[in-house]
Amino acid sequence: MQRSPIIGIMGGGQADEKTIRDAYRLGALIAQNRWYLLNGGREAGIMAASARGAAEHNGITIGILPDSHRQRISPHITIPIITGLGNARNCINVLTSDVVVACPGGAGTLSEIALALKNQKPVITLGFSFFSVPGIFLETARLSAAETPEAVVERIRELLGPDIPQA
Amino acid sequence: MQRSPIIGIMGGGQADEKTIRDAYRLGALIAQNRWYLLNGGREAGIMAASARGAAEHNGITIGILPDSHRQRISPHITIPIITGLGNARNCINVLTSDVVVACPGGAGTLSEIALALKNQKPVITLGFSFFSVPGIFLETARLSAAETPEAVVERIRELLGPDIPQA
Amino acid sequence: MQRSPIIGIMGGGQADEKTIRDAYRLGALIAQNRWYLLNGGREAGIMAASARGAAEHNGITIGILPDSHRQRISPHITIPIITGLGNARNCINVLTSDVVVACPGGAGTLSEIALALKNQKPVITLGFSFFSVPGIFLETARLSAAETPEAVVERIRELLGPDIPQA
Amino acid sequence: MQRSPIIGIMGGGQADEKTIRDAYRLGALIAQNRWYLLNGGREAGIMAASARGAAEHNGITIGILPDSHRQRISPHITIPIITGLGNARNCINVLTSDVVVACPGGAGTLSEIALALKNQKPVITLGFSFFSVPGIFLETARLSAAETPEAVVERIRELLGPDIPQA
Repeated sequence: MQRSPIIGIMGGGQADEKTIRDAYRLGALIAQNRWYLLNGGREAGIMAASARGAAEHNGITIGILPDSHRQRISPHITIPIITGLGNARNCINVLTSDVVVACPGGAGTLSEIALALKNQKPVITLGFSFFSVPGIFLETARLSAAETPEAVVERIRELLGPDIPQA
Repeated sequence: MQRSPIIGIMGGGQADEKTIRDAYRLGALIAQNRWYLLNGGREAGIMAASARGAAEHNGITIGILPDSHRQRISPHITIPIITGLGNARNCINVLTSDVVVACPGGAGTLSEIALALKNQKPVITLGFSFFSVPGIFLETARLSAAETPEAVVERIRELLGPDIPQA
Repeated sequence: MQRSPIIGIMGGGQADEKTIRDAYRLGALIAQNRWYLLNGGREAGIMAASARGAAEHNGITIGILPDSHRQRISPHITIPIITGLGNARNCINVLTSDVVVACPGGAGTLSEIALALKNQKPVITLGFSFFSVPGIFLETARLSAAETPEAVVERIRELLGPDIPQA
Repeated sequence: MQRSPIIGIMGGGQADEKTIRDAYRLGALIAQNRWYLLNGGREAGIMAASARGAAEHNGITIGILPDSHRQRISPHITIPIITGLGNARNCINVLTSDVVVACPGGAGTLSEIALALKNQKPVITLGFSFFSVPGIFLETARLSAAETPEAVVERIRELLGPDIPQA
């Protein structure tokens, strides 16, 4: 038996109109090539659009769900894999895919790009450069930079607040 | 019981001398503050150096190992947690830490920064900017960019090679 | 879209001839009912036999692999899910299945029966009683029983050996 | 550095008075032996009692939490490991423990005994025989036995109900 390649589509649970259109079109093309589409399985953003694109072109779609229940599965997922692992399921997404395509997203998508590279998987970004992951800017308020270990500790103390016992 | 904060140190299994010195010093400072140090637990790079820094200053060190065996635990880890989960243990690293400090590293470290941001954890980078993750450049040979869904499919075909059945 | 039910087949990597025949026949029946078959995905014992039974009757087979690589996938698996999680993938097996069928096996199979019951999944044992899990007897050399906490500690001391620091 | 052994205590989130007393006493004995106590980390049943027993005798207690948040941690846990993995964290419990002690429990406890045996860990049952796991009887309403593959399929049809498409 020759197995069909599995193409993983990563991307945000929220996305603008052009990105949604691209994800739908990419799902359709994957189905027309008789490849399997894999994504995060939920009925939101890139996941919903790419699954719908594939399903409406008779493709088989695999959804790797973070939940331990079935309440958020996209209706266009043929095969829902219920992991109950939260974000740890991101590792399964990249290990199971032969090729990873990243659509615009935030920190979750960035983690999948990074895990794919860590696991020697080829990654294709669609419509953005890896070095300017778009959604990530919204989430970097919690990010600080330090130049020395002492400066790190100073910042940790600020973050932990006054109630933490000091040495 | 007031619980000690857990400070997670992420960073590469390989690192230059200055980075190793900084990781050791940071481990020492964490111990002197009576915080717990958490890292990936292996006897390599940032993990080994930060655990040694803390252990040599009477700190408690928690190592979250990717393996299902005990053969690569740093001798300076007080409490080895054997996960058997591979890179999926990166999620445990960030969920368990009150604050995440990222030292220079590659794709694994980048995935931990991304997962920390995804889980609303504060992240401090030590000695580099998040927007130029240093080691990542070594691993981006597998990274391509595309502007349209059709260009993605063209690139997937190249990656899959000539033996794949075409539609 | 009405989704096909997923029937999970659990059971040992080694099995006697009758058990292998039953697993093959069960796989064939599942395919003929147009249900999806799920198992652990490896080319061994119950996994190999049930996947072959389904594949030779045009069924779709889902294999949830413990490995992070593709080297042990049964050739009769249509959709290999590569988890890299070791035995933690047993949880995915039961969460993803609508019904769990347990063929004779050892401790791994017992863990899947237990996890299925824990997650309110229906379990059907084929050819053995749950209360006499056959293979488990082979692995119970490591199992001791104690009547008091003090007896437990006595047994732990024996197990840890003389090199362990005593209070 | 010689590392302290880690003794894992498994057992139900609900338990009768004698079982709770035994779990508390076992926690106390573990602390007095300067071993580390590991359990599931929640403030319920065996977990709460054994952690309290150890903590009130100056022991170090490690809690492997199923949640991705900190809201159900027992106050007697020194080191909470936040996994976000649900029941998949049971594998970490047994891999991390040098010796596993099972107190009376249900299907979750049974899965931990089975996973420990699967991973060649010694298991000691306290106050019950493995071959009569007490709580499991409460959960076996979902368990059926079949003698042939055809009987399995008959039972699956009953379980799936009349709405499922038949071959």
